[in-house]
Amino acid sequence: MAASVDFWFEFASTYSYLAVSRIEQEALAAGVVVTWRPFLLGPIFKAQDWNDSPFNVYPVKGRYMWRDMERLCDGYGIPLKRPTQFPRNGLLAARVTLAGGDAGWVPPFVKRTYRANFAEDRDIADAKVLGELLRDVGADPAAVLTEAGSDAVKAKLRANTEEAVRLGIFGAPSFVANGELFWGNDRLADALVWAKRTA
Amino acid sequence: MAASVDFWFEFASTYSYLAVSRIEQEALAAGVVVTWRPFLLGPIFKAQDWNDSPFNVYPVKGRYMWRDMERLCDGYGIPLKRPTQFPRNGLLAARVTLAGGDAGWVPPFVKRTYRANFAEDRDIADAKVLGELLRDVGADPAAVLTEAGSDAVKAKLRANTEEAVRLGIFGAPSFVANGELFWGNDRLADALVWAKRTA
Repeated sequence: MAASVDFWFEFASTYSYLAVSRIEQEALAAGVVVTWRPFLLGPIFKAQDWNDSPFNVYPVKGRYMWRDMERLCDGYGIPLKRPTQFPRNGLLAARVTLAGGDAGWVPPFVKRTYRANFAEDRDIADAKVLGELLRDVGADPAAVLTEAGSDAVKAKLRANTEEAVRLGIFGAPSFVANGELFWGNDRLADALVWAKRTA
Repeated sequence: MAASVDFWFEFASTYSYLAVSRIEQEALAAGVVVTWRPFLLGPIFKAQDWNDSPFNVYPVKGRYMWRDMERLCDGYGIPLKRPTQFPRNGLLAARVTLAGGDAGWVPPFVKRTYRANFAEDRDIADAKVLGELLRDVGADPAAVLTEAGSDAVKAKLRANTEEAVRLGIFGAPSFVANGELFWGNDRLADALVWAKRTA
């Protein structure tokens, strides 16, 4: 069986931006297949009585996070422009991702959308913006956005988020390799090693 | 000027155990001088309305942390035995560390104490236990414990914790190199690189 990892990400999450920008190359080099699993942190945070990003609830931690992001993006050579709104609602972007299924444009769309949010300060909650990003990656905006609003896709996203809770996921990005949970961009390499070792 | 890093640690903190076990070797290899700065997370957590470790306040995160610690300790080749009490109060151990000042037994005492807590399940809040650990590293238990109870040492620990807050520290371990804050065992290497680059 091929070594594989489930990649759990939330469009609002800063550290997911880092993982999204690295995972394809890293997984390819490691010989690990990636399944892209969008989910929502909102319901998970609400269960902990947070109605906002913990980086806003705890401003000292938030200040650190933005500085940490600057350093890490510098190191990876990826652009960062602190968004004027944080967090942005990733609900529609997650549904668009699921509407894409296995289509080849899905990973490029996910990367394009993170860049729009965290390097171009664009509102990824806006269907018009997502339509433009879909066009950027060669997808059909009207067809995909319609599918993204379907009951089937809505149910899929709810199911993803429920599965994340069952897996013990409490933040993003997270990686699951053969049932083993790794949390945070810092654990990507460990997750890939685990996937290989247990394949 | 020699490259240097302030190493901020809290005796109750699991991830500090990892950093404590690695920092001397890593810093030596990097040519960076380490200043050991014990402080207390309790007052910092209380200011965020946590009266317990966030790993207890958020059990899902706590479960993950213990599993993550198992994997990391395995990787580093250091022993781990989940303590029957968590967190243990690190107040007296921190005062003992400050009572030691620049004495050569201080780093060995800190390492010995983390091992007692996280690999031997011993109560590091107990003066008798700390006395034994001081003896293990060649210090004079009676003299050091008396000094640890002095007003001067108590004030020093309060000052350390206040300085940590001023530096924007919100968790442990943290590393500060030329005013730049790095949080977490995962950032040790980055902190050492920063220290060298800005020395």
